[in-house]
Amino acid sequence: MQPKISHLAEATVAIVGLGLIGGSLALALGEKCGRRIGVARRQETANLAVHIRAVDGATTHLRPAVEQADIVVLAAPVQTILSMVEEVGAYMRPGSLLTDVGSTKGAIVTAMGRLPEHLTSVGGHPMCGKEVGGLGHADASIFKGATYVLTPTLRTTDEAMSLCSEMVEAIGPRPLVLDAERHDRAAAYVSHLPYLLAASLVQAEAEAELDDPVVGKLASSGFRDTTRLAASEVPMMLDILLSNRQAIEEALAGFERHVVHVRKLLDDPNGLEEWMERSQRKRRGMFV
Amino acid sequence: MQPKISHLAEATVAIVGLGLIGGSLALALGEKCGRRIGVARRQETANLAVHIRAVDGATTHLRPAVEQADIVVLAAPVQTILSMVEEVGAYMRPGSLLTDVGSTKGAIVTAMGRLPEHLTSVGGHPMCGKEVGGLGHADASIFKGATYVLTPTLRTTDEAMSLCSEMVEAIGPRPLVLDAERHDRAAAYVSHLPYLLAASLVQAEAEAELDDPVVGKLASSGFRDTTRLAASEVPMMLDILLSNRQAIEEALAGFERHVVHVRKLLDDPNGLEEWMERSQRKRRGMFV
Repeated sequence: MQPKISHLAEATVAIVGLGLIGGSLALALGEKCGRRIGVARRQETANLAVHIRAVDGATTHLRPAVEQADIVVLAAPVQTILSMVEEVGAYMRPGSLLTDVGSTKGAIVTAMGRLPEHLTSVGGHPMCGKEVGGLGHADASIFKGATYVLTPTLRTTDEAMSLCSEMVEAIGPRPLVLDAERHDRAAAYVSHLPYLLAASLVQAEAEAELDDPVVGKLASSGFRDTTRLAASEVPMMLDILLSNRQAIEEALAGFERHVVHVRKLLDDPNGLEEWMERSQRKRRGMFV
Repeated sequence: MQPKISHLAEATVAIVGLGLIGGSLALALGEKCGRRIGVARRQETANLAVHIRAVDGATTHLRPAVEQADIVVLAAPVQTILSMVEEVGAYMRPGSLLTDVGSTKGAIVTAMGRLPEHLTSVGGHPMCGKEVGGLGHADASIFKGATYVLTPTLRTTDEAMSLCSEMVEAIGPRPLVLDAERHDRAAAYVSHLPYLLAASLVQAEAEAELDDPVVGKLASSGFRDTTRLAASEVPMMLDILLSNRQAIEEALAGFERHVVHVRKLLDDPNGLEEWMERSQRKRRGMFV
């Protein structure tokens, strides 16, 4: 099925969920699409979205917004997206496109592949964020320099992928087409594992602080940065952990092997130094 | 033994080691002391330090600098400091004060307690830094808002502690008097353990990238911050790991218990959510 509208400039975009990512996406879209309609759970959020011009109109009702849209973007935690796909698909106009910004793609892409045949769909995940959520923190610039994964579904056509890529490029990031399994495994290593380590480190520090309150007083920028992800929004992270279990277990096991190894190297200064230099070289070669 | 000079404004301060911390300390001291003499291993560094006005004079020779000083600050990795204490003590004038900025305090404070009785000494550690070293990155503002631990030695007098506190307050941070053992245990949790986790995470990611190069492409701000410490200067970190073995093993074991626990919680969504909320609450309550 072809999307009815093939260019973003003419498209009505419904953004379902006006939190950090939905709100930032709406702000970044600006006047690059025909019209932006926001859907929020609370009227207060809908009003704020209009007030800060994140959207051209906003409602708390899913159906009327989705019925008008050429593109629907589901911007919510993974389980919430999964709970909406079928209902949203029932309201959408023939030829329109469903996409999402969910943090894990396996289950969502499967659900999107079961949409009616008169719809198209492409999974999506912008690789950016903040440790705080909500429309109040929305910021069009969070997409700058980021990668935005686009994941094919059984309802992805060339035209749908091309319209989705156009939207991604319009808001800033680099689109990267990647199947759900590869996305979820990579995200486990670079995002979900780091969250678990950050949260476990905070728990270990909290326990040590019970013995000696001075422990927390010595925490500085190193601890602050290493643990930043522990402050992430819990509903979003919980859905991620529960929907990407296998890849996370693999990443955690990989990490644990390296911890066991470096603990042994504490007895071998030369080996330890080499290991530290490898980590340093690798890390200094990233984000440059 | 009383320090000959009891006020910073009159003191000649020799800063031995003009890397990130020594250079930053020299810059922050500015005109708050009588005179700053820098000691560098390389003439090039000595010249640069004078050029950027980090010091009033600089040399590559330890003895003439230390002989003139009322306060000597050893600013180097832990093992380098340890290798210098006795020699520096032999050159220092009666009544003068030796301090340092070493990252672990146990061995240094012991060595400083064995100085000749006509000298005073106080261990020190500013809880701040960057993942890059060298005078080129020195910056007086890194001390802003930081805690600066002052550790008593067998050669610490009230006057020596008071002069050291005056110097710390002059450059910006809050002085915190703490014995070496408590410092080293706290630093293991908030600094050395985070480094080991960051470096192990980088190794795990690098291994996953060998299977699928896309893993590295999805790394974003979360991975960047969680692994920042892996880029730390190796000579400094190596000395830390080797000189604080017992506390680091304790911290690592504490961390591992929480990882084992959270891995079990992946089977218990309610328990997992509670655990995540505890981590989030604790982390959001820090650095505010």
